[in-house]
Amino acid sequence: MSEELVEKILSGKVKLHEVENWTANDSNAATAIRRAYVERKYGKQLGHVALNCIDWDDAISRNIENPIGATQVPLGCAGELTVKGEYANGSYPILLATTEGRLVAGISRGLTVFNAAGGVNTAIAKDGMTRDVLVRTAGAKEAVRLARWVEKNIAFLSEAFGRTTKHGRLVEVRPYLAGRDVHLRFRATTGAAMGMNMVTIAAKAAVDAALPQLEKEGIRAIVLSESGNMCSDKKPAIINMLEGRGVSVVADATLPRKTVLERFRVEPEMIAELNRIKCLQGSALAGSHGFNAHVANMLAAMYLAHGQDLAQIVEGSQALTDAAVIDGNLYVSCWLPTLEVGTFGGGTKRETQQEALRLLGLYGDKDPDGKTRLAFAEIVAAVCLVGEINLLAVQAAGELSRSHGSIKRG
Amino acid sequence: MSEELVEKILSGKVKLHEVENWTANDSNAATAIRRAYVERKYGKQLGHVALNCIDWDDAISRNIENPIGATQVPLGCAGELTVKGEYANGSYPILLATTEGRLVAGISRGLTVFNAAGGVNTAIAKDGMTRDVLVRTAGAKEAVRLARWVEKNIAFLSEAFGRTTKHGRLVEVRPYLAGRDVHLRFRATTGAAMGMNMVTIAAKAAVDAALPQLEKEGIRAIVLSESGNMCSDKKPAIINMLEGRGVSVVADATLPRKTVLERFRVEPEMIAELNRIKCLQGSALAGSHGFNAHVANMLAAMYLAHGQDLAQIVEGSQALTDAAVIDGNLYVSCWLPTLEVGTFGGGTKRETQQEALRLLGLYGDKDPDGKTRLAFAEIVAAVCLVGEINLLAVQAAGELSRSHGSIKRG
Amino acid sequence: MSEELVEKILSGKVKLHEVENWTANDSNAATAIRRAYVERKYGKQLGHVALNCIDWDDAISRNIENPIGATQVPLGCAGELTVKGEYANGSYPILLATTEGRLVAGISRGLTVFNAAGGVNTAIAKDGMTRDVLVRTAGAKEAVRLARWVEKNIAFLSEAFGRTTKHGRLVEVRPYLAGRDVHLRFRATTGAAMGMNMVTIAAKAAVDAALPQLEKEGIRAIVLSESGNMCSDKKPAIINMLEGRGVSVVADATLPRKTVLERFRVEPEMIAELNRIKCLQGSALAGSHGFNAHVANMLAAMYLAHGQDLAQIVEGSQALTDAAVIDGNLYVSCWLPTLEVGTFGGGTKRETQQEALRLLGLYGDKDPDGKTRLAFAEIVAAVCLVGEINLLAVQAAGELSRSHGSIKRG
Amino acid sequence: MSEELVEKILSGKVKLHEVENWTANDSNAATAIRRAYVERKYGKQLGHVALNCIDWDDAISRNIENPIGATQVPLGCAGELTVKGEYANGSYPILLATTEGRLVAGISRGLTVFNAAGGVNTAIAKDGMTRDVLVRTAGAKEAVRLARWVEKNIAFLSEAFGRTTKHGRLVEVRPYLAGRDVHLRFRATTGAAMGMNMVTIAAKAAVDAALPQLEKEGIRAIVLSESGNMCSDKKPAIINMLEGRGVSVVADATLPRKTVLERFRVEPEMIAELNRIKCLQGSALAGSHGFNAHVANMLAAMYLAHGQDLAQIVEGSQALTDAAVIDGNLYVSCWLPTLEVGTFGGGTKRETQQEALRLLGLYGDKDPDGKTRLAFAEIVAAVCLVGEINLLAVQAAGELSRSHGSIKRG
Repeated sequence: MSEELVEKILSGKVKLHEVENWTANDSNAATAIRRAYVERKYGKQLGHVALNCIDWDDAISRNIENPIGATQVPLGCAGELTVKGEYANGSYPILLATTEGRLVAGISRGLTVFNAAGGVNTAIAKDGMTRDVLVRTAGAKEAVRLARWVEKNIAFLSEAFGRTTKHGRLVEVRPYLAGRDVHLRFRATTGAAMGMNMVTIAAKAAVDAALPQLEKEGIRAIVLSESGNMCSDKKPAIINMLEGRGVSVVADATLPRKTVLERFRVEPEMIAELNRIKCLQGSALAGSHGFNAHVANMLAAMYLAHGQDLAQIVEGSQALTDAAVIDGNLYVSCWLPTLEVGTFGGGTKRETQQEALRLLGLYGDKDPDGKTRLAFAEIVAAVCLVGEINLLAVQAAGELSRSHGSIKRG
Repeated sequence: MSEELVEKILSGKVKLHEVENWTANDSNAATAIRRAYVERKYGKQLGHVALNCIDWDDAISRNIENPIGATQVPLGCAGELTVKGEYANGSYPILLATTEGRLVAGISRGLTVFNAAGGVNTAIAKDGMTRDVLVRTAGAKEAVRLARWVEKNIAFLSEAFGRTTKHGRLVEVRPYLAGRDVHLRFRATTGAAMGMNMVTIAAKAAVDAALPQLEKEGIRAIVLSESGNMCSDKKPAIINMLEGRGVSVVADATLPRKTVLERFRVEPEMIAELNRIKCLQGSALAGSHGFNAHVANMLAAMYLAHGQDLAQIVEGSQALTDAAVIDGNLYVSCWLPTLEVGTFGGGTKRETQQEALRLLGLYGDKDPDGKTRLAFAEIVAAVCLVGEINLLAVQAAGELSRSHGSIKRG
Repeated sequence: MSEELVEKILSGKVKLHEVENWTANDSNAATAIRRAYVERKYGKQLGHVALNCIDWDDAISRNIENPIGATQVPLGCAGELTVKGEYANGSYPILLATTEGRLVAGISRGLTVFNAAGGVNTAIAKDGMTRDVLVRTAGAKEAVRLARWVEKNIAFLSEAFGRTTKHGRLVEVRPYLAGRDVHLRFRATTGAAMGMNMVTIAAKAAVDAALPQLEKEGIRAIVLSESGNMCSDKKPAIINMLEGRGVSVVADATLPRKTVLERFRVEPEMIAELNRIKCLQGSALAGSHGFNAHVANMLAAMYLAHGQDLAQIVEGSQALTDAAVIDGNLYVSCWLPTLEVGTFGGGTKRETQQEALRLLGLYGDKDPDGKTRLAFAEIVAAVCLVGEINLLAVQAAGELSRSHGSIKRG
Repeated sequence: MSEELVEKILSGKVKLHEVENWTANDSNAATAIRRAYVERKYGKQLGHVALNCIDWDDAISRNIENPIGATQVPLGCAGELTVKGEYANGSYPILLATTEGRLVAGISRGLTVFNAAGGVNTAIAKDGMTRDVLVRTAGAKEAVRLARWVEKNIAFLSEAFGRTTKHGRLVEVRPYLAGRDVHLRFRATTGAAMGMNMVTIAAKAAVDAALPQLEKEGIRAIVLSESGNMCSDKKPAIINMLEGRGVSVVADATLPRKTVLERFRVEPEMIAELNRIKCLQGSALAGSHGFNAHVANMLAAMYLAHGQDLAQIVEGSQALTDAAVIDGNLYVSCWLPTLEVGTFGGGTKRETQQEALRLLGLYGDKDPDGKTRLAFAEIVAAVCLVGEINLLAVQAAGELSRSHGSIKRG
């Protein structure tokens, strides 16, 4: 039958997303058939794509359409990291999925250095997924009145918001003006889930409930878009650095001078200076809003391994790395205002990703309060700090160290 | 033996990266042993992580250290897309690796609409991977002199640059001042490879060759860092939007009014207005430099499926989507100044990723000129445009369309 | 005596700021002597600088040191403008001090068009001068705890803040993290004054009062700087666009199609399109955060004429101009989140500037509530809108209009 | 007659800009009459505005319309500054026009410190006023072709550019894409003038000349706007930081430790650390592109005193201040990529402003090569550096110094 079905797809009689109609809704079978079709049509083999462990009946209900197999990415273990946070507390195995050679090795080296110094401290400054519902009023005066109404009626909005979601809890709504239009940026905690869909639905419901109330007070408004880009999702944006999105985490540690000299083979002063001229000054001049060395690398490898939304590496990369010498020792920190992570829902259900989260003890299937999510964010932040300082140390141990950063006039 | 070896790792006698020493450099065996160690140590199963098709002996030489298995991500086929570019010309199967539900379905819908309109035009505006070598001089005057020297001695630098690389060809070096420090941003074409390492090595070599020349002219300088963050790699940065990094591609298409109305069920005017208030105005107010709806989603799914560096989604997301009504039809474009892609080297060698590239006919193993890389960049750009307009159409068909974006005073 | 004194200055025996010691604190005499010294020393005439109406005894106490005379800038009257705001209501004479030819003429033309359309609506979205006191804690965890303490103890901070100022009233304190450091951004209303000094002193006092409280709770902190640049004063900064600084005003108007066609000689659609591609798209691509045509021009001329701080044109220029066609008419708005103005104190006391404010009926010498300041901000915003649309109309009436912005393929 | 004329204006029979028609084109008389009208209409006195030294017949031809008098701003002499630049070489009297108390005093203190250290070095990295002519093509492919044509036909454009201007000389044209639209950023040197109008006219002429050539090659294009906001004039924009606009100057100096300790009463290390956490880190977190303390203050006072365009303080404020300790001494620099200044034309002709420029020996009436302009830019840059370091020293000598920036856990 499958051969026949492949023919039907080739001839255009059956569309790719209709294959399940012909396989009694067996997506595992349908996945194989679609793959066979692609192989036939383009005359290429997809033998490795075929080899996978994914339960397609489940995957198709939440993660993918028209599946034909899986992409496989190497998963390495960098070792374990001691994290001393509010939700993450202990030593955690650090798995990284990547194809960037030397990334796991570098972080592995970093882990031993930080563990030797007692681990990484983390603290959560803020929590809440955001969504910007964009509304239009009749003019500037009405826009201002609407903004004021919103600020005064947070209880009303909170109640309306809560009606569509069990785990989402509204934290605040901040209005931003644009002439007669107003961007209403909702922020809500979201249990164990990353929560973007949850917040989108609930925020829209809250605005829908508000519009008749506003009309009673003479303020007419309409919704222009469920997302007006001030959320700001999957785009780099200062608003996320300032206001946070997802979990805002800060990680720090003090590495004894001796440890730095022995393990990194470079003076703490060189790391601090490199961080200043590269991560602060260089980024400043580049018009960058990522004041770090390569946070995106750690995010990509951690996010992929643990089932996170990879496009959210974008805003996650807007992090600030600091390095300073205090009493001869090296104080380092990393401020990550935008870690949009989840330990339940989305890609976390997939087989390999779920195993990685369970290895951390942080799969969020029984965590309505989202403690696993916050713990995972702390671990991600700690790994970012380790990866940052390791790379800075490598670079500082090179040219900078040889010259001590100073030059004399001939 | 493997049980014994796991014990040795558990007791700390053998380190994770030393396992190959005990398996006669058999990384496939070592991968299983490391995984067994992790399972034992944390008392968790990694059965799915175990199931993989990766040749670890190869992977460990280029992509990963301490491997324990693989992460699997669902791969879907959205259909095929007609691309009319300079290097990509024809209909290409679009594979996307993602766990974001509805992404493949959305792009699949978009593909049919764009194909019906004749496909997507693409053109390459610029090509060249960049690296910023940061040097320090004795003071402001010397810094300016150094910058001038560089501008006049591009031939010298080019020759020195070329000595370390077969495929890299220097295009330009732009100096940026920061007091006494100077950021030298090298740009080079890189054959089929994404080329960052290639350019890093060659740029450093070129600067090393230049320093003695500079000293002869009385300009003393030292290298502070092989990367001064004005490259700018894996951080959002305006310099990349303005100067480009990797391949700078623009994609456009004109969708007939009838097509838009029938397929997207929304008037072209609504899509244009939504793009204006959301992707331009909303992003502007958010302090964002991603003037688009969700380009990062398409990049993440395309990059993952085809073995690209996921952290480079960050700068790739700095794209500009345009939508305008011309004679009743919908003109749409997407400008992507920073697609850092490769069709050879890095993650492209991995089994499933290579299959995806070969399916496009664009695996770059025999392409010293990088035509496959440029073709792949055009396809990525075309898919981004499709994904952008499809999402805008969905959102515009909602509230915006019902109200036509206008509101009257009570 | 003055000749003798000039000699003493020339010989270095008397310093420029010591001249008043020799003139019985008569600054008018001292000003003439200093000027004579400069003329003598450099052999140049300052005859025009000499001609001025400034009361130097007063000026030296608040505005200047070492005065030698005055700079004179032409002051023009563009006409009057009908403003329909919350605090400004009526028709106001618009004086502009500038040397930019055609600026007064252009605004003059714009005024007649807007008046014909009924004037400009304005509304105030937010009010409050800000100052960022930068504090350092012992580490990331303490920084987060400090931030939380601040959010919970706004009443305490408010009380301490109020002790140093009669007119300043604390509105909020927002903490922003940077590793172990915390930026505390104070916002306060400031009566009729622009209020930066007032807020600086009071914010520092509030933090000084807080530190012992924090220590009781085990949080040790020190002040690093009375201003940590997140205020953000006299630098372009997104934080001001998002959070506002000084007065945040929105101005709008609807210009009937007929009026636009007759007076501006261009179709409303052309103005809307030019605004989109220039003020939104062009600025976006330039990495600009001023989404307007030339707001800084109006600010410069209004600020100079009315005694404002000229350096604050910088952040004032971060404004968003919108233009859209609604039912054939032209809707226009200008959103100015950062108008740091005052009607009392600073430069407003100077003779000519005070006359300009009094002409508006808005000199703030008897206005503890700052209503004159808010009214002045509304007028400034209204003038900015007029100047914006007039320039866009001029440019749109040129090339854009001739081609209707469309081009056909050969 | 004047009384009668005032009545005519009051009754609307004569418009403000028509008064000269009734005074035989005597603008001095007309200025008095307009002022009388304003005084009558609003019942307020403008006695100080009346007192001025301006030649209105000249002023009205270049600087102002509808003049009614002048605004006067106190002008102080901060002392003199030793500048060791390429064009400015020697000791220059520093005049500042301001109403900000303590600004002149602060700079005055700074001058003595820098002079004691031998003065300020300056160097010019780049020169050229820019204007972005925005053109539209039929689509993405044509846009890329147009961009390539421009890059190859710089000689043609240069020739066409030069036909409209005697002093402007085209340096480069850089094309920036936006879908089918292309921003053509012209850069030209402009003699002694700031040159914006010159470049606007010439750039437009060059594009007009290019369009027929482009059409011959099958590339149809139209001009959308003479300015597409990528210039970028009077808006903060990263493009200006990266590419420069006007004169790009770097200033530096090394202050001996002893001098810093004695004069500033603070350790060099404190100044360096404050600069790092405030001007780099604080600005970074604020989403600012002004990495300095208060450059806008110096620009405002220098620009106003010397007849510059005040609105261009905006982009001028995008400067980078650096401070580092080298061998115990304090190395400081200020990088100002966007000093749009002129020594001829515009506001420099006005009486008091011209006197200030002549005092410097830099009035540009006989300087077709623009050497006076470049010298003035160097002096401005040097004053900015002095003002920056003086303020940082003041702030560092406060709290930061007392605590040495370090805090110990209780």
